[in-house]
Amino acid sequence: MSVLRRDPVTARWVVLADAPPSVRAPGGPCPFCEGNEHLTPREVFALERRPREPDQPGWSVRVVPNARPLLRIEAPLERQADRIYDTASGTGAHEIVIETPEHRSSLAELPPAQVALALRAWGARIKDLKGDPRFRSIFIFKNQGLLAGAWMPGHAHSQVIGLPVTPKTLKEILQGARTHYRLKERCVFCDILLEELDAGTRIIEATDRFVALAPYAPRHPFESWILPRAHNPDFEEADAADFDDLATLVVALLGRLERVLPEPAYNLFLYSGPNRAGQPAKKWTTLADDFHWHIQILPRLMHETGFEVGSGFYANSVTPEQAAAALRATS
Amino acid sequence: MSVLRRDPVTARWVVLADAPPSVRAPGGPCPFCEGNEHLTPREVFALERRPREPDQPGWSVRVVPNARPLLRIEAPLERQADRIYDTASGTGAHEIVIETPEHRSSLAELPPAQVALALRAWGARIKDLKGDPRFRSIFIFKNQGLLAGAWMPGHAHSQVIGLPVTPKTLKEILQGARTHYRLKERCVFCDILLEELDAGTRIIEATDRFVALAPYAPRHPFESWILPRAHNPDFEEADAADFDDLATLVVALLGRLERVLPEPAYNLFLYSGPNRAGQPAKKWTTLADDFHWHIQILPRLMHETGFEVGSGFYANSVTPEQAAAALRATS
Repeated sequence: MSVLRRDPVTARWVVLADAPPSVRAPGGPCPFCEGNEHLTPREVFALERRPREPDQPGWSVRVVPNARPLLRIEAPLERQADRIYDTASGTGAHEIVIETPEHRSSLAELPPAQVALALRAWGARIKDLKGDPRFRSIFIFKNQGLLAGAWMPGHAHSQVIGLPVTPKTLKEILQGARTHYRLKERCVFCDILLEELDAGTRIIEATDRFVALAPYAPRHPFESWILPRAHNPDFEEADAADFDDLATLVVALLGRLERVLPEPAYNLFLYSGPNRAGQPAKKWTTLADDFHWHIQILPRLMHETGFEVGSGFYANSVTPEQAAAALRATS
Repeated sequence: MSVLRRDPVTARWVVLADAPPSVRAPGGPCPFCEGNEHLTPREVFALERRPREPDQPGWSVRVVPNARPLLRIEAPLERQADRIYDTASGTGAHEIVIETPEHRSSLAELPPAQVALALRAWGARIKDLKGDPRFRSIFIFKNQGLLAGAWMPGHAHSQVIGLPVTPKTLKEILQGARTHYRLKERCVFCDILLEELDAGTRIIEATDRFVALAPYAPRHPFESWILPRAHNPDFEEADAADFDDLATLVVALLGRLERVLPEPAYNLFLYSGPNRAGQPAKKWTTLADDFHWHIQILPRLMHETGFEVGSGFYANSVTPEQAAAALRATS
């Protein structure tokens, strides 16, 4: 069984996993392709093209538990002292969203209507997992390419993790947004949107409902963020028209990135509001007014050095103004 | 000119460098070897084997400015608003400590007496740079191996960075230590040392003055820390006997790591107290009592995934008890 442990200095949680992450044997059939449903654990959710039994063909997007999960949903949640330290059970959800029934490696290759279905599945999983008060936050991410930590090349998928603690980076974002809100009585992301739409130099592309931009202080070359124009803390509250519009922008943005950087390794992060149901009021639980869900796409072009990992200070030799101009110039 | 920019949500600083980091052309002479002093910028410090002119042979450890620095010491320090954002000039020091005149790639291959000289040079550079009140903190690190971000293989060296802002990770460590001190009136690192020496299961090796251990919540397999037994916030206050004892332990620990993991990529971080001279009292400037300098050695065996980078939550499949037992078992 996995366990969680907390670093006593920084309060950073780690999961000590009971097994290393799975690596698929090369040459075998792809477990994510339609027709190979028997090669995965039983599905927890699917969007269907036609009436079907679970774990049968006929799906558009399929969500299954990770075959070697970091966290297990059946473990009861226990937090306890371990002499001077703090530990918790490895309770949580770890799921895979198979974004297409066909063997395609990148979201940018899919029709926007298919990507809209994958986004709808993200929303449905967040909504479902937030019904479990053990989970403080639901984090969705993608690893694309070896440098971004992908271990299953070849079939587009994302990962959903439901956690019984608030992870450190999300807590920093929530606390930063809360601090700004306390000071200004405004959402920091709404402020960023207004500033960026006015300045224009870091805007990559905008739709009716969403804006893609290069952030002011990017960690790596060609980092981009997608923000909804309308204030909303929770991704899962988006409606079908939002998902359609967002899918168009995601496909366009990843296409631009692939034209500037051939076969880019990147991570995609979805930062949605934490689970407010059943949680005690904490300084990092959010009010609806002080957080604004958003997506970050972080290219991983090189190995992070000791400077970045050890100091948390990033060095980047491409300005966001240069990156946005280059991404805008592709079509 | 490089500039610093601050992310408005997380307060993370990035340096937008005016040039990508230098990569040495393959096949040329090594600029760090004795006899090739003309291939580096002029030295700022050296420990000498015999009386000599600067930038001539006869040195044991030599410190030179980075040929393509992230930050420049001659830039006046200016902090200013950039519309809604915060920016600062790229003022700082960026130096290379050449740890041996001979072409050796790893500290573990050097005699402990030579490593003690490299540690003495670290202390001397911190002491000198702390005399400049523009610098809030001096960060020393090593990149060993491609996965750890090394760009100059083949000749052992470390990097010294003097920063006009406190980097995020150091701030977290200082704030965590301060929080513990406020609550308990004890140093958290002194508490960790007592606990670990009592439990014993995570101790790797100890000397008269230092302890090497696997931390309770390690980010990656085989992470280790070295702490001085005696409380002291500032590395540069160590004396010659400290440096000798520490050098013996560093060489032994890296030797153990190399026997468990062949040619390991790793980062080494020196966390010493921030510059208290000329600084306004801030919540992350340290009292002498609440911080304890230490070294962290972080193996970089695999690419960090979107889970780690995006959530700040680490997954590790080797417990520190397993790691310490494996490292102890080598000799």
